[in-house]
Amino acid sequence: MSKDNNNFVKEITNIEDDFAKWYTDIVLKADLADYTDTKGCIAIKPYGYAIWENIQKYADKKFKKVGVKNIYLPVLIPESLLNKEKEHVEGFAPEVAWVTMGGNEKLEEKLCIRPTSETMFSVLYSKWVKSWRDLPMIYNQWCNVLRWEKETRPFLRSREFLWQEGHTVHETAEEAQKLTLKMLDTYAEIIEELLAIPVIKGRKTEKEKFAGAEATYTVETLMHDGRALQSGTSHYFGQNFTKPFNVKFQTREGKEEYAYQTSWGISTRLIGGVIMAHGDNRGLKLPPKVAPIQAVIVPVAMQKEGVKEKAEELYNKLSEEFRMEIDTRDNYTPGYKFNDWEMRGVPVRIEIGPRDIENGVCVFVRRDTSEKITVKLEEVSLKLEETLDKIQDNMFNECKNRMLEKTTTAQDMDEFIKNINENQGYVKAMWCGNEECENKIKELTGAHSRCIPFKKENISDKCVCCGKPAKEFVIWGRQY
Amino acid sequence: MSKDNNNFVKEITNIEDDFAKWYTDIVLKADLADYTDTKGCIAIKPYGYAIWENIQKYADKKFKKVGVKNIYLPVLIPESLLNKEKEHVEGFAPEVAWVTMGGNEKLEEKLCIRPTSETMFSVLYSKWVKSWRDLPMIYNQWCNVLRWEKETRPFLRSREFLWQEGHTVHETAEEAQKLTLKMLDTYAEIIEELLAIPVIKGRKTEKEKFAGAEATYTVETLMHDGRALQSGTSHYFGQNFTKPFNVKFQTREGKEEYAYQTSWGISTRLIGGVIMAHGDNRGLKLPPKVAPIQAVIVPVAMQKEGVKEKAEELYNKLSEEFRMEIDTRDNYTPGYKFNDWEMRGVPVRIEIGPRDIENGVCVFVRRDTSEKITVKLEEVSLKLEETLDKIQDNMFNECKNRMLEKTTTAQDMDEFIKNINENQGYVKAMWCGNEECENKIKELTGAHSRCIPFKKENISDKCVCCGKPAKEFVIWGRQY
Repeated sequence: MSKDNNNFVKEITNIEDDFAKWYTDIVLKADLADYTDTKGCIAIKPYGYAIWENIQKYADKKFKKVGVKNIYLPVLIPESLLNKEKEHVEGFAPEVAWVTMGGNEKLEEKLCIRPTSETMFSVLYSKWVKSWRDLPMIYNQWCNVLRWEKETRPFLRSREFLWQEGHTVHETAEEAQKLTLKMLDTYAEIIEELLAIPVIKGRKTEKEKFAGAEATYTVETLMHDGRALQSGTSHYFGQNFTKPFNVKFQTREGKEEYAYQTSWGISTRLIGGVIMAHGDNRGLKLPPKVAPIQAVIVPVAMQKEGVKEKAEELYNKLSEEFRMEIDTRDNYTPGYKFNDWEMRGVPVRIEIGPRDIENGVCVFVRRDTSEKITVKLEEVSLKLEETLDKIQDNMFNECKNRMLEKTTTAQDMDEFIKNINENQGYVKAMWCGNEECENKIKELTGAHSRCIPFKKENISDKCVCCGKPAKEFVIWGRQY
Repeated sequence: MSKDNNNFVKEITNIEDDFAKWYTDIVLKADLADYTDTKGCIAIKPYGYAIWENIQKYADKKFKKVGVKNIYLPVLIPESLLNKEKEHVEGFAPEVAWVTMGGNEKLEEKLCIRPTSETMFSVLYSKWVKSWRDLPMIYNQWCNVLRWEKETRPFLRSREFLWQEGHTVHETAEEAQKLTLKMLDTYAEIIEELLAIPVIKGRKTEKEKFAGAEATYTVETLMHDGRALQSGTSHYFGQNFTKPFNVKFQTREGKEEYAYQTSWGISTRLIGGVIMAHGDNRGLKLPPKVAPIQAVIVPVAMQKEGVKEKAEELYNKLSEEFRMEIDTRDNYTPGYKFNDWEMRGVPVRIEIGPRDIENGVCVFVRRDTSEKITVKLEEVSLKLEETLDKIQDNMFNECKNRMLEKTTTAQDMDEFIKNINENQGYVKAMWCGNEECENKIKELTGAHSRCIPFKKENISDKCVCCGKPAKEFVIWGRQY
């Protein structure tokens, strides 16, 4: 082997040895993102950003079917606006960045960079909503937000991140609640169908809900190491914001009433989820539907006559239907390239060399199973579609099986602690509904309540922590 | 007529009386944007944002054909980075917003909200570029930027605006210059093809070029009132940023060299351009290709049996191919609706009433010419496509004719002043190349040099201002 064919996969930390280090290695070496001179903020590189673009396209299409309209509001929010809803400001004020100077002048009122936009939406809704005829307003923005986090990690907890924030306003509580759950279902579809990650849908406890919400619903996912990732949330606000912001409308009966509100968001955090849910010791592993490159063609013995041409012909043909790449770099060996594209998580590698061309075939290598499949050149489009579908399904199933393997049940705290230490993952346990027990569980195990799942199970009639009568079935887990 | 059928077009200021007021009326009444509690920043409403989405889609597709890759960099830039290129910081520092506090703590180094990202791109390119094999990097980001303007106007000069900023880095000056002009051509295509506004391409004078650029190229457009709008710019930087930021690479010959850079941008300002280039006394007038709603169906005598159903059938059919709306509001008369959709600039209104249905027809009304066309229901798709194409072409031609009517030639300053006062628009005149004359022209006429057009004309051999030998053919105009 040539000297540059160093197996750089070795440069990636072993996933079982140090998952956190493995994660950072993937982010940097698969060229998804890089650190910047702005502390706590990353640069999302083309390969990482293309994943986000695919998520955006998929989500935006689904949103538009629900009737969502896109809009754009200011990134700066005056302090007085942020202060209008008490719980909300207490939740967010400690973690916002403040603009205090414009040009060379000190501002009379400082402005925060939006950590989320409930306040800005609400003040505008108070201008825009007059009659029941104006309702509902189902608006969304794709934008950047900033939260002054102390500890940051690329994609998972970055000071600045990209997201969408939907904010809606309705005539009735029922309609708003229905929309809240509709968006949660939409998130579940996006994450399961596109990202091939199974979700658990449920309601957050009072302690874990969004600052200012009546109820927060969540889609929870489980990562390779058994830690949970809150992957999308949808909030029902009732009139919590419409009252302080005076979002009133004339009802069908000619009376005045405060409107009902929701908000919901998913973010570039999902990219972190994809990395951690699917990746392995060979690197990133991308589900075909979201992969920026669905298949890469690597010509073998490229110096031989006709090989490069045939590979390019294949590339042109497949590019009409799939997101393709061809690797004709002349300063790397095929072996180096194989490793490189595996590490970057491309679902299918297509090898084609002189003997293949003679036989009218090429060889598919699946990233998920390493299976090699010899494919006739005239069937290549059909076979690639089929193979990508199989990979997408298999990745979802693998991920689901891992989740099930890492889900345990606990009747008491001894069992809870044993389970989470031996097989970190979800722990199902009953809860009395008391925040003291929730805090104690956190203290003893490091696990937060993930959610009160919509699918209830009846494990016991006693709280796992205090032994008093149980009120709720809860899924617990350590979190990102 | 019913009482609610007030001709609200009267609420829009006459375009010839007060163009600035007319503009603001359109922005607000056509529901494109609204003012917010954050001074100088607007809320882009769904109808305005949909225009931006159409521009983005059209532009992004063209960019990707050029090989542009999207990326996302931090919104906050440390002061020390901004300070690295002297001309650049002098140009931008007076108009940036500064973040000085994160959470409750004062920051050690203040951070500005990006007014543009040359500095952030350059520092990252210095990490990413090692060898000629890494070049070119042709990256772009769609994002928000902020400039602390004193006087603001919706879309045209907003403190925060949305744009794309492309930043590229190359092996040779020639390649970088070629890319600079390629992107300018791309902008010209977007503005002419999509927005139906003719452009003049040219180079900015030294005085008007971008802070830190070797050369700035521009696409200039002319508005209804004869003022010019700089609609997109593309900058060639040479090594102006790569030297202070140390963006070096190993050449093919194994030497070290500083790379060559470009940047280029278009923004939500273009929405202001569409309003001002095409609008009239009936309101907004949108080119079909960029219009969020290409045709609106207004049922007439909707209470009559079968009318609403037939209109909805038509709507469903046309929605498969076109961006459609149907107006079945029961609290407005057809007359009110006609005015409303005209004011909102929808290219085609489709009327359908009981007699039309009997005759198997509907009626198209063109927004640009008010022409009424009776169309057989079975030919409606074909006819709509044809009509939209005609409107797109006609709007471009009308705009071009207005530009030509408002373009004059001046041999001396008397003529220059007379022309611009009597027929505000472009003034073509020769220039000695001296900044003193440029300043004097500005002082005497309020006109800036728009550009030194690529298409040269030889009007005289003397500078319009000083009478000394002319060096350049320049187009001048008052500006937004």
